[in-house]
Amino acid sequence: MSDILFERIALIGIGLIGSSIARDIKELGLAGEVVISTRSEETLKRAEELELGTAYTTSPAKAVEGADLVIVSVPVGASEMVAQQIAPHLKAGAIVTDVGSTKASVIAQMAPHMPDHVHFIPGHPLAGTEKSGPDAGFSGLFRDRWCIFTPLADTDPQALAALRQFWEKLGSRIDEMDPEHHDKVLAIVSHLPHIIAYNIVGTADDLGTVTESEVIKYSASGFRDFTRLAASDPTMWRDVCLHNKDAILEMLARFSEDLAYLQRAIRWGEGDKLFELFSRTRNIRRSIVQAGQDVDTPDFGRHTLDQKK
Amino acid sequence: MSDILFERIALIGIGLIGSSIARDIKELGLAGEVVISTRSEETLKRAEELELGTAYTTSPAKAVEGADLVIVSVPVGASEMVAQQIAPHLKAGAIVTDVGSTKASVIAQMAPHMPDHVHFIPGHPLAGTEKSGPDAGFSGLFRDRWCIFTPLADTDPQALAALRQFWEKLGSRIDEMDPEHHDKVLAIVSHLPHIIAYNIVGTADDLGTVTESEVIKYSASGFRDFTRLAASDPTMWRDVCLHNKDAILEMLARFSEDLAYLQRAIRWGEGDKLFELFSRTRNIRRSIVQAGQDVDTPDFGRHTLDQKK
Repeated sequence: MSDILFERIALIGIGLIGSSIARDIKELGLAGEVVISTRSEETLKRAEELELGTAYTTSPAKAVEGADLVIVSVPVGASEMVAQQIAPHLKAGAIVTDVGSTKASVIAQMAPHMPDHVHFIPGHPLAGTEKSGPDAGFSGLFRDRWCIFTPLADTDPQALAALRQFWEKLGSRIDEMDPEHHDKVLAIVSHLPHIIAYNIVGTADDLGTVTESEVIKYSASGFRDFTRLAASDPTMWRDVCLHNKDAILEMLARFSEDLAYLQRAIRWGEGDKLFELFSRTRNIRRSIVQAGQDVDTPDFGRHTLDQKK
Repeated sequence: MSDILFERIALIGIGLIGSSIARDIKELGLAGEVVISTRSEETLKRAEELELGTAYTTSPAKAVEGADLVIVSVPVGASEMVAQQIAPHLKAGAIVTDVGSTKASVIAQMAPHMPDHVHFIPGHPLAGTEKSGPDAGFSGLFRDRWCIFTPLADTDPQALAALRQFWEKLGSRIDEMDPEHHDKVLAIVSHLPHIIAYNIVGTADDLGTVTESEVIKYSASGFRDFTRLAASDPTMWRDVCLHNKDAILEMLARFSEDLAYLQRAIRWGEGDKLFELFSRTRNIRRSIVQAGQDVDTPDFGRHTLDQKK
């Protein structure tokens, strides 16, 4: 039991991210008690069946009482409501953090409600899958993944160090940046890809000349890759779109501009321009694999999984 | 040796697809002789080192002499040149097929050159990975994947049956459709996804405010999925864009229209519209998994591969 980092941890929200954190805490023995709170009775019951914590409540206010670390893992649009609910009940000296994909908005929603006697440290672990809910979580989700903190100007270094230690125990690598920069980076590496994936899957679904069954049947030729991202949690992604609007609109504008250029090259048969772009992008893939950010196995290793069937 | 379907097979082009076919033929013993031809001396040498065939030549004309089955696996833009080179040397009764991703253009390029005494049957196995070259091929690539024939009006049923049997031995499921419909279907399930992937990776690469190292470092949050498709063979994809222009431009127009609608919903904070689309696309993913066209393992099973490192 010498691995305990926090006597009591409260997890507000127990979806893919919250339940993965819960599993890691349990497996690594990082807390004395883990209080789990979620709005839905049904989800809470499931969390209890899965034995993800030591106590369960639908009241975030009750959950945070006496907690040394509070981790808010809810769709970013719910951040303010949660902040309002928990604020009066937070223990002096508690660390409050979140896992939201947009940081400026979460800070704007939560910081005004946080009492002076707690340490509010916004965070974002860059990890997840296309699945959602407490059954989708698993221990090890954060291993070798980045967790980005966007600390406020007056953040207590000791509290920051304690939170860093927590995420490092989960296997994460830590980075710090300001919230605006975080939101721009995430807009391109995460938000735009998801939006584009949702969009292309929608376009395919609407086609009259090609039937939906054909789209599904022949999806292995490229399309299926996009359907994975487009199967992500709709509530989470609606909120991301609404709460990182400016950065996303900027990235969408750039993307559309580039696509118009590409479209024009196709229309006018400019093979050289196409070849130049298609060669350049290959190098980026190589860098990602070299940086250990993706597997090098062809087709994400799907073939291996296919053969096991 | 009773599994022999063709006494002599000529493979024109020995990249990912050609070399996978070669490996299957060898493993399954489907041919007496396999003559391999490719333009590049270096690639030919590599094919020989890999023992992919029984004879090797840089001359397509020589390769097809006496061959009962000729499989052309080259970038679609090279189809006419290959047809011209092989036409005078084809054996009477030979079956000539291809594996190109666009069918109307390949037919327009090859059919006029084919002598009356051969059976030209355009084909397209929907299989591949982002890798290219003779080392990238593997046996089993076509197992459980669709192979689409787009036979001409006067195609000999017996020749068609023989080619079907060949692909079925490789594990493929066979479909037939007319070339124009094939090109529309592929434009949405394959060509558009690749073009969009190339485009988004290009957009990310160009960003001034976010450094390239950040794009690579944080790519696991969505972006990396696109880099796989965008690492595909540039020559192949340049040719696809140039040779399925009309269908691709139509799909691009639809995609851009839909994206403008989505962008507007983000700008005006229309959460309901976003939620509706994001929910609809989730069902399509489910159908694809149910149809056995993708693995259900979260994140394509990457996590499992990660942990093995």
